[in-house]
Amino acid sequence: MATDQPQSDGAPSETYSEFATRVKRIANVSNAAGILQWDQEVVMPDEGTPARAQQLSTLSSISHELLTADETGELLEELESAALTDEQAAVVREVRRRYDRETSVPQELVEEISETTANAHPTWKQAKAEDDFETFAPTLEKLVELKREYAHHIDPDADPYEVLFSDYEPYIDLETAEGVLERLRDELVPLIDAIDESDAELTTDAFAGEFDDDDQETLARDVLDSLGYDWSRGRLDTAPHPFSSGTQFDARVTTRFEEDDLLGSITSTIHEFGHANYTLGLPDEGYGTPLGEARDLSVHESQSRLWENHIGRSRPFWEQFLPTARGRFPGLEDVTSEDAYEAANQVHDDNLIRVEADELTYHLHIVIRFEIERDLIAGDLAVKDVPEVWNDKYEEYLGVRPETDAEGCLQDIHWSHGSFGYFPTYSLGSVLAAQLYAAAEDELGGLDARIREGEFDDLNGWLRENVHQHGKQYTTQELIERATGEELTADHFLEYVTAKYGELYDLEV
Amino acid sequence: MATDQPQSDGAPSETYSEFATRVKRIANVSNAAGILQWDQEVVMPDEGTPARAQQLSTLSSISHELLTADETGELLEELESAALTDEQAAVVREVRRRYDRETSVPQELVEEISETTANAHPTWKQAKAEDDFETFAPTLEKLVELKREYAHHIDPDADPYEVLFSDYEPYIDLETAEGVLERLRDELVPLIDAIDESDAELTTDAFAGEFDDDDQETLARDVLDSLGYDWSRGRLDTAPHPFSSGTQFDARVTTRFEEDDLLGSITSTIHEFGHANYTLGLPDEGYGTPLGEARDLSVHESQSRLWENHIGRSRPFWEQFLPTARGRFPGLEDVTSEDAYEAANQVHDDNLIRVEADELTYHLHIVIRFEIERDLIAGDLAVKDVPEVWNDKYEEYLGVRPETDAEGCLQDIHWSHGSFGYFPTYSLGSVLAAQLYAAAEDELGGLDARIREGEFDDLNGWLRENVHQHGKQYTTQELIERATGEELTADHFLEYVTAKYGELYDLEV
Repeated sequence: MATDQPQSDGAPSETYSEFATRVKRIANVSNAAGILQWDQEVVMPDEGTPARAQQLSTLSSISHELLTADETGELLEELESAALTDEQAAVVREVRRRYDRETSVPQELVEEISETTANAHPTWKQAKAEDDFETFAPTLEKLVELKREYAHHIDPDADPYEVLFSDYEPYIDLETAEGVLERLRDELVPLIDAIDESDAELTTDAFAGEFDDDDQETLARDVLDSLGYDWSRGRLDTAPHPFSSGTQFDARVTTRFEEDDLLGSITSTIHEFGHANYTLGLPDEGYGTPLGEARDLSVHESQSRLWENHIGRSRPFWEQFLPTARGRFPGLEDVTSEDAYEAANQVHDDNLIRVEADELTYHLHIVIRFEIERDLIAGDLAVKDVPEVWNDKYEEYLGVRPETDAEGCLQDIHWSHGSFGYFPTYSLGSVLAAQLYAAAEDELGGLDARIREGEFDDLNGWLRENVHQHGKQYTTQELIERATGEELTADHFLEYVTAKYGELYDLEV
Repeated sequence: MATDQPQSDGAPSETYSEFATRVKRIANVSNAAGILQWDQEVVMPDEGTPARAQQLSTLSSISHELLTADETGELLEELESAALTDEQAAVVREVRRRYDRETSVPQELVEEISETTANAHPTWKQAKAEDDFETFAPTLEKLVELKREYAHHIDPDADPYEVLFSDYEPYIDLETAEGVLERLRDELVPLIDAIDESDAELTTDAFAGEFDDDDQETLARDVLDSLGYDWSRGRLDTAPHPFSSGTQFDARVTTRFEEDDLLGSITSTIHEFGHANYTLGLPDEGYGTPLGEARDLSVHESQSRLWENHIGRSRPFWEQFLPTARGRFPGLEDVTSEDAYEAANQVHDDNLIRVEADELTYHLHIVIRFEIERDLIAGDLAVKDVPEVWNDKYEEYLGVRPETDAEGCLQDIHWSHGSFGYFPTYSLGSVLAAQLYAAAEDELGGLDARIREGEFDDLNGWLRENVHQHGKQYTTQELIERATGEELTADHFLEYVTAKYGELYDLEV
């Protein structure tokens, strides 16, 4: 990076260096907070919360203060009128964007949102446990109001939902995202209907049984070994809600084990590997600046889904990996790789729960949330009407109506975090995963054969070269175009699922 | 704390509150760094170091900047002329001390020391591995010089060794410490000689054998259970160099297991429990200010040694705990509690290594280091002469002469950290442990019987009430006098070891 910094135009070596020092400081504080969060989820004793909450709040306010300080603004202005390398300009662009957003929202509002969401979490949890939407409704109303206010501060002229969406996905415009979601809805609904009407009977019980936690952990390590996880820069632990976090020097995976869900622990481990593997592919020398940070949520999710779905749910993967699984669980000896492949790819159109959804219906869960939260933020839908609208949409898109709000509109945690605009990035991630996988197949050829050999180096090399190593140097759309030669498109995802599920369910495609 | 803040004298509620907010912020940054250090020692992947070093360096400089900011100085001045509660005054006293010290040392010198010690560590490690003092000598010279300079900035009129000592033990003056060490030397040397000449033969092989790591861990958890460790605020892990760290909400223990050293893992676990148990006894409501922080190193070490030695190496402890150990290790079935007690209390006057020393010779190891480093800092001893002086002193005090510097003056890491003045706190801790234990026995009576029952609540209650709950409210000498009714004295330690080892070795006392 920055090997050819021009010295013309009063070149700002010193200014840039001062700026970079400040940016790295902020990154170090945030990365320290990341370790504290990992610790809290994975190893912290139960009663550690009061101190941990204060530590995290302090780190968060310090990094906010460092970012929004006048000095940051002055350095940005100076650098924006100076000659910079492309890499430097990218760092300035990214920091400018964060600076503008964080300085435009009054600190009191940030704190009110933070306090409201802190209290919203237990309220949501209780409402879900008691299946009582009315308990949560006032909080949800308050959060909708606060987040609209927040969006207004950032850009009073923009659609507030678009502003919120861009918190998670700054470089894909909402129109593009909406277009993708509409296409998914329009093309997946008939595909799922066709599957529902198909006579094909997939093996459902390949992974039925009880599986010991310790053996599941051993197998999860086998999976990570076989995908090429770098243990010298990572580790595997368990957490109630699996996640991956860290930096290019230390990107950790968590997973969870349930006695009756071996397949779930394998796919979840592969998913989190995809996230960690992206982080590990960021350039070491970029640590501390946006050049060493992952592009945003959609790209991150593309990496987890590429590994989870295009590899972990593929036929050649099970041909290669099943013998290892049989080695750990002799009870699987009669399961064939075809059984395993079918078990990993069943479509359940009567499932109400997003996190248990298959590769196809998943996106209808997302579309429903997207349509509802967009209308909520626009003021076109009242909070009190959410449960009915939710249930109507499930009936319309998936042909199944939730009987309770607990398995309906209260199922997900996101709104209690005030995270409106987050859900679409899940579907964008799947779509981009398919687009990247198709581009890698075009360039490398024979990916199936490599997977069947347990040979992932070439694919991972391609991802490193075309995605990981660039950090945030390019905007998301630039990154996608450079890697795949085209703009973000749902074409490849739809081709992939049509072919895969057409074959699995004997559809006439 | 601070329940009766006076409102007279333009009472500084707002000023104090602003001050407390600042102090808590600093504490939160330091405690965050503590978690990062725990993580580094216990769970961090090997290659995580480059990022971790930057994160820790950033947190350290942020907490330095917050402490030494002009605002801190102004708040201190304002509060020092205001009416404060005793608790508030204690907080101001402690922060003033840190503020004065940190503002008096130029930042360049701090950084030079930090850089020199960072480089000193591998140099020392190599010198020790190769038994080559000359490799380390220039670094040691540099560190002596830098630390003298450092001391001079803090107090140009004081004995520089006293200034360095007070970094670790601010409220015990060096004369007192020196008096204690001299008494230990003068009285322990003849006691050890008498033991050496004794015909008594203690059981040496009670814990001979090979012990599986997992079973050792189970037993370490048994020990912690039996002492009353609060698992909801703690955890046990392994680390190459066992330590304890954390806050009153989350105080963790580490230990280590060696196949042939079951006794070592038990005593080390009890030692670290003592540290963690102190931390857990600090008042919750004091979190973030000195009222919720442990007094300094000698008091901390008194807690670890009280539990390790007065309990873990006592006869009633082994009477109570041996059956549990036998349950985990059936190979111990023929070992009696008397065997275990003797094995845990053997005196080895031919041992050269401090960390392997027994309760008696340990202090001669400390006295030797103290005398050498005091002369080094005073300029009365040249670095090149350290090995010879070291070996002479070992011969004089312990009757054994190191054959190599690796098992002589290169054995400990401390000087490579620039930690001159640290060693005495180990002996002060032992002395204070005996003094506190005697005071608890005076007040509670029958501690032996309670230990034999595995009943530690009363003793721990006494420690909570007399030591733990006060945090840094009192100076060390005040704390000791309030708890024991007398000034720090080696009397109780010497009485304790004379009685204990007199009986063990059939001495005429």
